[in-house]
Amino acid sequence: MNSAEQLIERVLSGETRAIARAITTIENHGDAAAELMRAVFPQTGNALIVGITGAPGAGKSSLVDKLAFYYRHAGKRIGIICVDPSSPFSGGAILGDRIRMATLGLDKNVFIRSMATRGNLGGLSRATVDAVAVLDAAGCDIVIVETVGVGQDEVEIVKTADVSVVVLVPGMGDDIQAIKAGIMEIGDVFVINKADREGVLRTQKELDALLSLAHRPDMWQPPIVKTIATENKGIEDLAAAIESYSDFQKNAETASSRRQAIAKWRLLELLQERLLNDLLDKNGTGERIEQLSAEIATKMKDPYSAVEELVAAGAAKN
Amino acid sequence: MNSAEQLIERVLSGETRAIARAITTIENHGDAAAELMRAVFPQTGNALIVGITGAPGAGKSSLVDKLAFYYRHAGKRIGIICVDPSSPFSGGAILGDRIRMATLGLDKNVFIRSMATRGNLGGLSRATVDAVAVLDAAGCDIVIVETVGVGQDEVEIVKTADVSVVVLVPGMGDDIQAIKAGIMEIGDVFVINKADREGVLRTQKELDALLSLAHRPDMWQPPIVKTIATENKGIEDLAAAIESYSDFQKNAETASSRRQAIAKWRLLELLQERLLNDLLDKNGTGERIEQLSAEIATKMKDPYSAVEELVAAGAAKN
Repeated sequence: MNSAEQLIERVLSGETRAIARAITTIENHGDAAAELMRAVFPQTGNALIVGITGAPGAGKSSLVDKLAFYYRHAGKRIGIICVDPSSPFSGGAILGDRIRMATLGLDKNVFIRSMATRGNLGGLSRATVDAVAVLDAAGCDIVIVETVGVGQDEVEIVKTADVSVVVLVPGMGDDIQAIKAGIMEIGDVFVINKADREGVLRTQKELDALLSLAHRPDMWQPPIVKTIATENKGIEDLAAAIESYSDFQKNAETASSRRQAIAKWRLLELLQERLLNDLLDKNGTGERIEQLSAEIATKMKDPYSAVEELVAAGAAKN
Repeated sequence: MNSAEQLIERVLSGETRAIARAITTIENHGDAAAELMRAVFPQTGNALIVGITGAPGAGKSSLVDKLAFYYRHAGKRIGIICVDPSSPFSGGAILGDRIRMATLGLDKNVFIRSMATRGNLGGLSRATVDAVAVLDAAGCDIVIVETVGVGQDEVEIVKTADVSVVVLVPGMGDDIQAIKAGIMEIGDVFVINKADREGVLRTQKELDALLSLAHRPDMWQPPIVKTIATENKGIEDLAAAIESYSDFQKNAETASSRRQAIAKWRLLELLQERLLNDLLDKNGTGERIEQLSAEIATKMKDPYSAVEELVAAGAAKN
């Protein structure tokens, strides 16, 4: 048994350190990641994947922590992936997961991991989806994917979950309008967190009005759950709402087309990353890209002609 | 002169309808977009590109509108690109730009356009950067890029601006922590909008503390500007802060490496999109992708093996 097979074996038996190593392998992509994922993939499909998104400051982290505690008390194994569009200058990691490890992470049935982008060319969504698959194969009953941002990548990541939860706070009048276009339609369950704050009724009314305008292909009426995560209130209701959508979508006529759309998105993401890496791996391409970047920066060359040249050179090397 | 050359000619002379058509061409990508951009690119480099980002509800739109009015009164031509991670289900456009056209858009020296993603595979950042180049070539003195989301794509888009402005509101204690990792380090200028609200001092102190921890490669100390956009207060200060960073970065030692990093990011984005499209254009690939997606959805095949097959088939067709 080679070391890759050993790693896979240990991941499938749920060993925490092996899981951590596997996710690092995924983040670094390349052949090792592909081999790992080929072995992991057939073992997936047992976990319930819950995506949680919402504006910064909505209290998503507290909510995720309390939800994780709830599931733990019900005897479940939990995985948490926190997706963070990291510092673009330093590419540095965040402190969040270390702080949270202090409360939840001592429990060997809870696996927590932050994922951030590395360098300029994302691959974050692909890496996140693969990390979720690893946790699924490793025997987690519930995998929670929490996104820090509310941009395009985050929307796409949350779309791949079985159940998507959108978190709002009272008094977000403007915000509801602002985030409407982006994340309103992906919510299978809505949470109004910090529900002891002023304006909760108004937020609920606005949300009701917006939801009544939405046309979901599966005809689901997303429930609105009120929580005060810091006081552990409403968490049971949230778990029940998540379960009710999970049950619903298993039987929905649209379930298979949704799964196929997710599979296609994932396939195209992976394909795109692979095609670029194949080209970059060719002799001299990396160097030529640096030269071309300098020429583009000084306007000696336009980017489209540069791409033309790189593609032609890549084809010649086949 | 063919129709493409005519369009380019009209864009360069600043004709509004030609600009709108050019941006649509860019959004649809393909050969026409490449031809257009090759012609446009050498004419760029005159506009000051200002990126504005921040959490939903921070009042970015009002701020952008007021800033645009300010520049108009100074006799400048303005372009505004509003980047919106659109509804992932419907892919629908937003109403925002139409509402705003009512106030600003009647002025022929102001061009406003919303850009949203089309379908699953972004290309949004590339399209946005190209649209900015079109407005630049069309004679805009200032191009403002406003992002609705605060995710990875949005961060990357704002990074390509000459000056990046991050908008906060008072009482965002949690939010500052939450967005810290994501957008704190890209801000060349910080705005505390809605500065008549409670908590403005505390927000300023927290922001000061965070900024003092940051290590910018160019040693710039980002100024903090207080505004009340709805009352048109602080807009002049904001314009001055933007100008001061613009002057600073023109002479900074890091300026050329920053420009080269942006050029490289842009080149790789474009290359990735091109490689995928080349493969998708090959006979039968689209159909095979649908079949493979169905097989992945039912776990008959793993996505990595599917990618392997598509890459091999693509190479065989070369």
